[in-house]
Amino acid sequence: MKPGLLCIPCTVNAAFDMASRATDDPDKIKRILFEVLNWLPKAIEEDTSPNILHSHAFKIVQQLTGVKDPFRDLKKLSNDTALTVYSDLWNMIEKTDDKTEALRLSLKSSIIGNMIDFEVHGHRFSFEDFLSRIRSYLAEPLTIDDVGLLCENIREGVKVLYLTDNAGEIVFDKLVAKCLREKWGCEVTMVVKGGPILNDATLEDAKYVKLDEACSNLITTGDDTIGVAMDRVSEEFKNELNKADIIICKGQGNFESLIGLEKNIGKPVCYVLRTKCEVVAKSLGVKPGSNVVKFIGKT
Amino acid sequence: MKPGLLCIPCTVNAAFDMASRATDDPDKIKRILFEVLNWLPKAIEEDTSPNILHSHAFKIVQQLTGVKDPFRDLKKLSNDTALTVYSDLWNMIEKTDDKTEALRLSLKSSIIGNMIDFEVHGHRFSFEDFLSRIRSYLAEPLTIDDVGLLCENIREGVKVLYLTDNAGEIVFDKLVAKCLREKWGCEVTMVVKGGPILNDATLEDAKYVKLDEACSNLITTGDDTIGVAMDRVSEEFKNELNKADIIICKGQGNFESLIGLEKNIGKPVCYVLRTKCEVVAKSLGVKPGSNVVKFIGKT
Repeated sequence: MKPGLLCIPCTVNAAFDMASRATDDPDKIKRILFEVLNWLPKAIEEDTSPNILHSHAFKIVQQLTGVKDPFRDLKKLSNDTALTVYSDLWNMIEKTDDKTEALRLSLKSSIIGNMIDFEVHGHRFSFEDFLSRIRSYLAEPLTIDDVGLLCENIREGVKVLYLTDNAGEIVFDKLVAKCLREKWGCEVTMVVKGGPILNDATLEDAKYVKLDEACSNLITTGDDTIGVAMDRVSEEFKNELNKADIIICKGQGNFESLIGLEKNIGKPVCYVLRTKCEVVAKSLGVKPGSNVVKFIGKT
Repeated sequence: MKPGLLCIPCTVNAAFDMASRATDDPDKIKRILFEVLNWLPKAIEEDTSPNILHSHAFKIVQQLTGVKDPFRDLKKLSNDTALTVYSDLWNMIEKTDDKTEALRLSLKSSIIGNMIDFEVHGHRFSFEDFLSRIRSYLAEPLTIDDVGLLCENIREGVKVLYLTDNAGEIVFDKLVAKCLREKWGCEVTMVVKGGPILNDATLEDAKYVKLDEACSNLITTGDDTIGVAMDRVSEEFKNELNKADIIICKGQGNFESLIGLEKNIGKPVCYVLRTKCEVVAKSLGVKPGSNVVKFIGKT
């Protein structure tokens, strides 16, 4: 998607955050910020998609600090935190008889997994608080609820390609995969990133949370860009995309990279996300902070 | 003071906010942001003080949009909101017999006036909520409390020069001026900005809230820069600065412009502020979000 002007301060903020995680050296942080300030206007003029803006800022941080994965500790913490509530949430979904409602619950959980700031929970973490907060979020309706439409398009044997977003959150994505397989009989291929990019889930995270136990197949995009950059992904990913009957696209990064390309993809895409910024919210016609399951059928 | 690296994203954020208040035209907002991105590295390399960074970004917005006062509506709303609680707060201060405690209460009120986001209160404003929130803030101790030291340096006839910060907040500054005059017998000259800059109080705001009723003298810096830019202020301001026995310096912008210059000023300076960012908090050795009355005597 095209960037909004809000992507300018947002990318500078993200660059400062990434740089500060990667190094304590003020000279290096300054060099990173100056490079981002210098490069941004050209990238905005070229209508670079927001996920690519943040990905490129991340590359600058990697190159100028030599730190390949500044979010490593955060990702581990996020996974550990999310794992504490996994069984309770799965029990809730498993005992839901209506399989549409079960899928809705799992999708809502996965959106909640995207909205929770795991870092806050690093200190004085309370399992009870965490679970009760999740339960109260689960009780709220979705702002856009196309779960019914999604269910009309799945049945036994349907091949789902599921693009995951962040670490921690993938524990909640695992609930969706398990629900799609056990309640709906779908085949589910889960996709993580091919290398560290922000706090996005990689193969390391997927293995850590045993994502493979819940899905039929686990692959990467073959690339370390936020979302999906079609000119950079692996042949394996393209093959899986071709074989899939339906795509579930999780989070803002994946939304930014696929929205508007559904015609090229040639199969239904279901976007599952919380709108975290004005730019994405506006393109969906909702307010920032909305929880959305948006189904776009064959166009 | 020298800028921190955090001043880079902060100035870009502020530029976007100011630009969006001044215009709806995306091309103009883009031009403003591009100009800020282009100019920032040089300004940071030159160790430009944070208040000057934000002031310059504001000038770019004024020049490229032709809008002289993008914060006009917000300032009016802030003044009106603050005025609703003025009498209640003054009654509380007036009936406090211990005049040190009365001054502490007024100074705390003025810090609270700086920390409250008046914009939030634009919608469904509740006077009771507002006053009870202020009362609960007033019960909290200051993180740095040099009110005793300040009191050792004031008595009947002492000339106080009081540098104000934002609109709305000046209603609370009026409490301090009134307390200094009525309880301590000081002469108080209040200083506002010489023209619109962010949401800083101008002569228009001062007259609107009848600041002149509470002070001995009301002047401007003669300049529309955030804080005090010594090479830009008027002769009138310089004369008042020379005549004063003590300076009360309110808010981050004034702090950024005077801290470290106390020797040149040659008289005690009392900084009254809430630390709203890491850069200012660090220079005071406290956390962001701390309420501070910091007295620096003749150095």
